[in-house]
Amino acid sequence: MKVIKKVISISKIANNIRLKKNTIGFIPTMGALHEGHLFLIQKAREENDIVIVSIFVNPKQFTNAHDLEKYPHNIEKDRLLIESYVDYLFVPSEQEMYPSDFHTSITVGDHAHDLEGEFRSGHFEGMATVVHKFLTICVPTRAYFGLKDYQQFMVVSQMVEDLNINVKIIGVPTVREESGLAMSSRNVQLSDVDRKIAARVYKALLDTKNKIISGERNSHVVEKYCMDLLLQIPNSKIEYVAVRTLPLKRIPIIQSDIVLLVALSIGHVRLIDNIIVRNN
Amino acid sequence: MKVIKKVISISKIANNIRLKKNTIGFIPTMGALHEGHLFLIQKAREENDIVIVSIFVNPKQFTNAHDLEKYPHNIEKDRLLIESYVDYLFVPSEQEMYPSDFHTSITVGDHAHDLEGEFRSGHFEGMATVVHKFLTICVPTRAYFGLKDYQQFMVVSQMVEDLNINVKIIGVPTVREESGLAMSSRNVQLSDVDRKIAARVYKALLDTKNKIISGERNSHVVEKYCMDLLLQIPNSKIEYVAVRTLPLKRIPIIQSDIVLLVALSIGHVRLIDNIIVRNN
Repeated sequence: MKVIKKVISISKIANNIRLKKNTIGFIPTMGALHEGHLFLIQKAREENDIVIVSIFVNPKQFTNAHDLEKYPHNIEKDRLLIESYVDYLFVPSEQEMYPSDFHTSITVGDHAHDLEGEFRSGHFEGMATVVHKFLTICVPTRAYFGLKDYQQFMVVSQMVEDLNINVKIIGVPTVREESGLAMSSRNVQLSDVDRKIAARVYKALLDTKNKIISGERNSHVVEKYCMDLLLQIPNSKIEYVAVRTLPLKRIPIIQSDIVLLVALSIGHVRLIDNIIVRNN
Repeated sequence: MKVIKKVISISKIANNIRLKKNTIGFIPTMGALHEGHLFLIQKAREENDIVIVSIFVNPKQFTNAHDLEKYPHNIEKDRLLIESYVDYLFVPSEQEMYPSDFHTSITVGDHAHDLEGEFRSGHFEGMATVVHKFLTICVPTRAYFGLKDYQQFMVVSQMVEDLNINVKIIGVPTVREESGLAMSSRNVQLSDVDRKIAARVYKALLDTKNKIISGERNSHVVEKYCMDLLLQIPNSKIEYVAVRTLPLKRIPIIQSDIVLLVALSIGHVRLIDNIIVRNN
């Protein structure tokens, strides 16, 4: 695995790979890598000739300076974890990604103020902008995103389609800890007690999925049911519980495949999770 | 010259050209082609293997429905004018460029509410978004923009740099009618009388340039001088007169190369023009 720090270097490498008609699988990350990332890398490895991973804690997608400051990072540990599976690790500096006269921002309407967008104003603009930069720099054939961040996957997919960017965006199922807790770089911030408690989020999603499968079709009733389960989790603060279609449209009555999305804090750690319920 | 209507078709053609290591020169237009466009095409012809021109009257960059409606178009005339010099003419429909679920918008900060951005709110977002789409669809090596739309050239250059899009943006000097009036698709909307009057805009720019060369260094005084000249044009309504550095920064005292930009209506026709003054 070669470690590259400059935009111009990885861009040349990537363009040469594509000119030779080899495929590139790309995984953008903010570091603090875990098994969820390894699963994305494995998918990319299976489907492409070359695998590029980026690590960049993107300040523009943080909506809170304290959150940015405490975001975990350990580049040396990350490097060791992935070096057997990855061809190029791209680790640009902030100056490299955002020179002082940087001015451009991408808005994917509808998402900007919905769900994560409502609670993290400006988050998706920052995320979409940096993902776009990585896509044009690393010119991947396929780029891989974890479905734990379901709305992020939808925002990136929409941007790529709208701007005609020549890449396939692939959503990869959430990897979970044995307890059911969705793998996340933020999990290391949880106390031991809170980490056990956090497993109840997925249990609530599973219970609510069963409620739907048992016949409940009213979105509001389903959301209320899930909310009541989450409210029983000690030390937590719920931000949203939402039933949506897979393209994230609101629906009063469940008549198709849906995704149930939740966001909450446990202690001072913000967590999100979701579950897809197929309407067979 | 082949006429292509589908995004997927021109995209395949363009990507194949680039895979064969041929270069593409691209000129995005809104039709109503004139000698200014021919000059852009000539430049592209000289510097590239293949030349692609697009014609698309982009509704998203019009800030006024009436202005969009009366924008001149004559695709058959355009086709005949350029067919000897161009390899591919791309003429997508609105549905082809903006499917019903289109949601993405690009903002190039600083410009969004400045000069043209101030008087045509949302104009640059619409323009930047469509230019981005054309650049990812037609993957040009070089793209050509007339410097009559100086701020547009700066917005596109900034977007391309910020988003790491792999294309060289080239600004081409304004072509003028014999009278000095800057070539523009909108000129055909001027009455015969107004078209003669409109030539006085460039005369005002030249006079003001001489004022600067003669030693006037105060931007405000220079702007006032130019404004007074424009105010003498009958049937006109001035929107702005601005002295800026070449990257379009405000400066109180002229100490470097500058651009003097003006926008005004004559009758019901909105015109813009500018002149660069080198500080030797």
